Amino acid sequence: RRENDGRKDEVGVVTGLAWTSVGGETMPVEVAVMDGVGKVELTGSLGNVMKESARAAVSYIRAHADVLGVERDFYKTKDIHIHVPEGAVPKDGPSAGVTITTALVSALTGIPVKGDVAMTGEITLRGRVIPIGGLKEKTMAALRSGIKTVVIPMDNQPDLAELSDTVRENLHFVPADRLETVLETALTVRPQPIKPKEKKEIATIPAGQGASLGGRVESPC
Amino acid sequence: RRENDGRKDEVGVVTGLAWTSVGGETMPVEVAVMDGVGKVELTGSLGNVMKESARAAVSYIRAHADVLGVERDFYKTKDIHIHVPEGAVPKDGPSAGVTITTALVSALTGIPVKGDVAMTGEITLRGRVIPIGGLKEKTMAALRSGIKTVVIPMDNQPDLAELSDTVRENLHFVPADRLETVLETALTVRPQPIKPKEKKEIATIPAGQGASLGGRVESPC
Amino acid sequence: RRENDGRKDEVGVVTGLAWTSVGGETMPVEVAVMDGVGKVELTGSLGNVMKESARAAVSYIRAHADVLGVERDFYKTKDIHIHVPEGAVPKDGPSAGVTITTALVSALTGIPVKGDVAMTGEITLRGRVIPIGGLKEKTMAALRSGIKTVVIPMDNQPDLAELSDTVRENLHFVPADRLETVLETALTVRPQPIKPKEKKEIATIPAGQGASLGGRVESPC
Amino acid sequence: RRENDGRKDEVGVVTGLAWTSVGGETMPVEVAVMDGVGKVELTGSLGNVMKESARAAVSYIRAHADVLGVERDFYKTKDIHIHVPEGAVPKDGPSAGVTITTALVSALTGIPVKGDVAMTGEITLRGRVIPIGGLKEKTMAALRSGIKTVVIPMDNQPDLAELSDTVRENLHFVPADRLETVLETALTVRPQPIKPKEKKEIATIPAGQGASLGGRVESPC
Amino acid sequence: RRENDGRKDEVGVVTGLAWTSVGGETMPVEVAVMDGVGKVELTGSLGNVMKESARAAVSYIRAHADVLGVERDFYKTKDIHIHVPEGAVPKDGPSAGVTITTALVSALTGIPVKGDVAMTGEITLRGRVIPIGGLKEKTMAALRSGIKTVVIPMDNQPDLAELSDTVRENLHFVPADRLETVLETALTVRPQPIKPKEKKEIATIPAGQGASLGGRVESPC
Amino acid sequence: RRENDGRKDEVGVVTGLAWTSVGGETMPVEVAVMDGVGKVELTGSLGNVMKESARAAVSYIRAHADVLGVERDFYKTKDIHIHVPEGAVPKDGPSAGVTITTALVSALTGIPVKGDVAMTGEITLRGRVIPIGGLKEKTMAALRSGIKTVVIPMDNQPDLAELSDTVRENLHFVPADRLETVLETALTVRPQPIKPKEKKEIATIPAGQGASLGGRVESPC
Ligand SMILES: [Ca+2]
Ligand SMILES: [Ca+2]
Ligand SMILES: [Ca+2]
Ligand SMILES: [Ca+2]
Ligand SMILES: [Ca+2]
Ligand SMILES: [Ca+2]
Ligand SMILES: [Ca+2]
Ligand SMILES: [Ca+2]
Ligand SMILES: [Ca+2]
Ligand SMILES: [Ca+2]
Ligand SMILES: [Ca+2]
Ligand SMILES: [Ca+2]
Repeated sequence: RRENDGRKDEVGVVTGLAWTSVGGETMPVEVAVMDGVGKVELTGSLGNVMKESARAAVSYIRAHADVLGVERDFYKTKDIHIHVPEGAVPKDGPSAGVTITTALVSALTGIPVKGDVAMTGEITLRGRVIPIGGLKEKTMAALRSGIKTVVIPMDNQPDLAELSDTVRENLHFVPADRLETVLETALTVRPQPIKPKEKKEIATIPAGQGASLGGRVESPC
Repeated sequence: RRENDGRKDEVGVVTGLAWTSVGGETMPVEVAVMDGVGKVELTGSLGNVMKESARAAVSYIRAHADVLGVERDFYKTKDIHIHVPEGAVPKDGPSAGVTITTALVSALTGIPVKGDVAMTGEITLRGRVIPIGGLKEKTMAALRSGIKTVVIPMDNQPDLAELSDTVRENLHFVPADRLETVLETALTVRPQPIKPKEKKEIATIPAGQGASLGGRVESPC
Repeated sequence: RRENDGRKDEVGVVTGLAWTSVGGETMPVEVAVMDGVGKVELTGSLGNVMKESARAAVSYIRAHADVLGVERDFYKTKDIHIHVPEGAVPKDGPSAGVTITTALVSALTGIPVKGDVAMTGEITLRGRVIPIGGLKEKTMAALRSGIKTVVIPMDNQPDLAELSDTVRENLHFVPADRLETVLETALTVRPQPIKPKEKKEIATIPAGQGASLGGRVESPC
Repeated sequence: RRENDGRKDEVGVVTGLAWTSVGGETMPVEVAVMDGVGKVELTGSLGNVMKESARAAVSYIRAHADVLGVERDFYKTKDIHIHVPEGAVPKDGPSAGVTITTALVSALTGIPVKGDVAMTGEITLRGRVIPIGGLKEKTMAALRSGIKTVVIPMDNQPDLAELSDTVRENLHFVPADRLETVLETALTVRPQPIKPKEKKEIATIPAGQGASLGGRVESPC
Repeated sequence: RRENDGRKDEVGVVTGLAWTSVGGETMPVEVAVMDGVGKVELTGSLGNVMKESARAAVSYIRAHADVLGVERDFYKTKDIHIHVPEGAVPKDGPSAGVTITTALVSALTGIPVKGDVAMTGEITLRGRVIPIGGLKEKTMAALRSGIKTVVIPMDNQPDLAELSDTVRENLHFVPADRLETVLETALTVRPQPIKPKEKKEIATIPAGQGASLGGRVESPC
Repeated sequence: RRENDGRKDEVGVVTGLAWTSVGGETMPVEVAVMDGVGKVELTGSLGNVMKESARAAVSYIRAHADVLGVERDFYKTKDIHIHVPEGAVPKDGPSAGVTITTALVSALTGIPVKGDVAMTGEITLRGRVIPIGGLKEKTMAALRSGIKTVVIPMDNQPDLAELSDTVRENLHFVPADRLETVLETALTVRPQPIKPKEKKEIATIPAGQGASLGGRVESPC
């Protein structure tokens, strides 16, 4: 088990980065997976945009379960709880999309998340990582918290020029435009794709993609 | 796989056109289809009119599944997620009706959508395309984004005269008054109608149409 | 197939008449019937009064399914979607009651609605047609739209005197105090009553009416 | 079939009396009973107090089904729709309690309601009729509408002294403190109590009343 | 059947005491138990605190069903309706907790409630009776209404000193700190505890209490 | 059975500490567990943050049922009611997280809680105890109420310096950064971990943690 300044690798917990009126902050996202019937619970005083972001993250994983090494039927055999401490602090916005998605993949596969990696980025339903705001404040908070590596959206790369020398020299930045890069960076090992059972339900065109939203069957990282 | 200025053909993603106070914008609509029980999830800070528009799109497809080449029972065997990035930007209005419907058909059939086609238009429950506003701003945004072809409502044809020469010369316009024309233009291949199982449930008049809302059994495009 | 100025007979679509601050307008009501479990969806920016009006229409048809030629069990084997374009225009009030009911009967029986008939009138749960407002504006809109026949509530007959000569000479008015008259006027053929299966569930009085709310078993038109 | 000034005896319809800022009005309450699963629908722009009043009426009938001649299992085999025209007029208050209850009993038993009887009174969950306001205005409206008999709460009897001579001479008043009197007055025939199946579920005291809330097994009228 | 000034012993009805801006009032709480599936309905313009109070009462009875002589499975085989007339008068606060609980026990066991007993007191989930306000006004209302005995929370005993001589001399006060005392005072006979079926589900400690919240198996009164 | 100044050890009841505008207060949290289907009821005028806190507590226990000695399937075989008297007093905030969690563990295992222990602390979904406010007021209330031991978050230890000598000399403080320490301090006996049934559902990595969120299988205390 690796450790960095007390930051342990853990399953189901990912360090996000938040941008508030008083500066940046690290914001851990916690995911618990329980035997259940497919309910998704969202707590931590989350606003609607953040809740929708979590919903999209769950759907992305459902639609790409095989390639992410997640059992296909988790949506009906497990309950999922996504919590963001501190419970009394209102939180909103889409920029925790990659954080929530990564925490979900970790919790559903059992693969730990590297304790010294933080991340920020909106995720779309097809796994694209799109830009966010407040990179300067967020990265300063990451540095203060002992983070070594920060995943940022590819389209935020120009913002790196505005960061202080200290931040740029002490943090390793990983630009990502697809979720695959995020997972590759944050998880301690690669998920093993599950060979999908053959299915012929939605197969009405000769050379058709069976799954929607670009479900390319390849290693996720 | 065709590509135009980085615009790939994809399954379950269609480029819509939005009209905001600061001008036009392209607005991709993403659809994911998952094994499930018939739930429909709508995210992306969508207003009530846009949500209702998505609901009508789903019902249109359910009522015309056979002719659209979609499995009839998807409404109880699949869950559908419709998402419109960017998650924090409020969106509303009925003019993404054709966009949402096309993305749904693509995701449910596995047929890719041409990457260089954009569209705008309200859809009614019987598949009619009715006019929208902001055509000037929307088409300027389409051109800026590398779009080649724009589907517009038939009744918006008079508005074409108000567009700049640049827009008119560089975009190909396809006026549509029925969904069939939209799908014909945007999908890479035609959906193959599924031969409907014989049903005699609602058949109380001699020469009656078995399905409501003009369910003409013909090729959709 | 009859046609009048482009107005086709269609299944599941009825021309209603709306009265807004800027005058009258035709307002088509669309109904789609799909295999399902009994859900009723209402879209088109409908206010609560109009939604309740649609609910009462559905219940009326359920309570009188046999005589209307509708399969009794549609409430649990079909889903129904009632949509009123244009989606962004708020609509409310009870005066589309007859319109919604007629569209439902058409969609559930497969019997087309005459394209040149429009209608306005509140419907009660026992099938009575009760008066509405704005008849002058509504009928002017009907005339402009190529309508030939307008069904109005019996108790609105005195208002006919206030209409312009043009309207009175070019539209045929059918006063109705029961739904039967509305259906008789608007449907292309009469629904065939379904012989009810014998049932003895609620039969505790000797000469009792088996069904509530005046379920007289006779031809509906 | 009796008739009085066009007021027919009907199943599932009872004439209530409402008191508005501009005077009294008759207010028919309509009930439809359909094959279903136990849903109760309430429409007619009803306020919360009136909706709760309807809920209590349904529970009263469920708890006293046997003695009222209503099949015990209607709460799970039938759907009930309670509608009060005119749909756009907001209505509230508890004074339609007896009206709703009587309409429900009529619809569930198939026994017609006398067309020349009107009523007003709050009902409690144990079938007590408690006083209401606006008796003067309500009875004037009843008289104007061709009503012959008005059921009023026993505790409103002192208010009769304030009514005009015309009203007192032309209407027959029936004071009621229990629902039994209301039903006896309004229904054309008495409900036949259904002999309850023996049940020993809740029977833990020797001389115990098997049913709660005073379920005395006797003829309801 | 005992009677006191017209106050009959009844099943499922308990006289509570309310404190309003214009003084005290008796407030009967009515409970009906019906064959059902476990639904709990609350009517009578109840505020949230009072609704939660009723919810806690139901849970208390569920958790202590055996000792209260109530069938354990009522939560899934019965529907419960709790109503507080007069329907149009808003009511709130926790002080009807003991009243609601007693009415529920009476309705579920069939044991009548003494007609000359009134009560006031908040109940907690473990059956403790905690203090309330307005004792002076409430007891004056009780006396006016023919009540002989009033159950009050033990911790309200000091307030008795502030009552008028008339009230103190004509009412019998029963201080209670546990629900057992309330039931002992108000029910006409003691509930017979049901011998619990042996269960070994939650039994992981040697000397463990099988039930939570102090489920002492003894006679409730 | 131990007793301290009338503070009994009880199952399902834990003394929390609240901080209001007028000072500190003890705040008992009551939990009842009943046969049921997995519903969780929250009453006591709880605000959203406190409700979410309770939800996270339930999920924590579900995800760590084995090690806490709780039957895994309680989430579908039991209903849980969490109540915080006094019902009319609004309560909010995350600082009752440890209190609610402890009360739940006690109620689900049948292990009593020491009557002279109070606690305050936010809990996260992975069982971390994080800091809260108002320690000075809360501990003064604990002392007044006969409490001997107070569990506080580890990160609140610096605040101990601000407490009065009386408080520091008469209360025993137990700093906790994990739930294990809280349970060890408050329960009368240790929960016996249940040997988990082997499961191979989510086991896609060689050395993977089967459970998410650090489900270390060891004695909880
Ligand atoms: Ca903070
Ligand atoms: Ca990569
Ligand atoms: Ca943008
Ligand atoms: Ca075409
Ligand atoms: Ca228009
Ligand atoms: Ca006719
Ligand atoms: Ca009127
Ligand atoms: Ca009588
Ligand atoms: Ca009163
Ligand atoms: Ca006692
Ligand atoms: Ca207090
Ligand atoms: Ca320890």
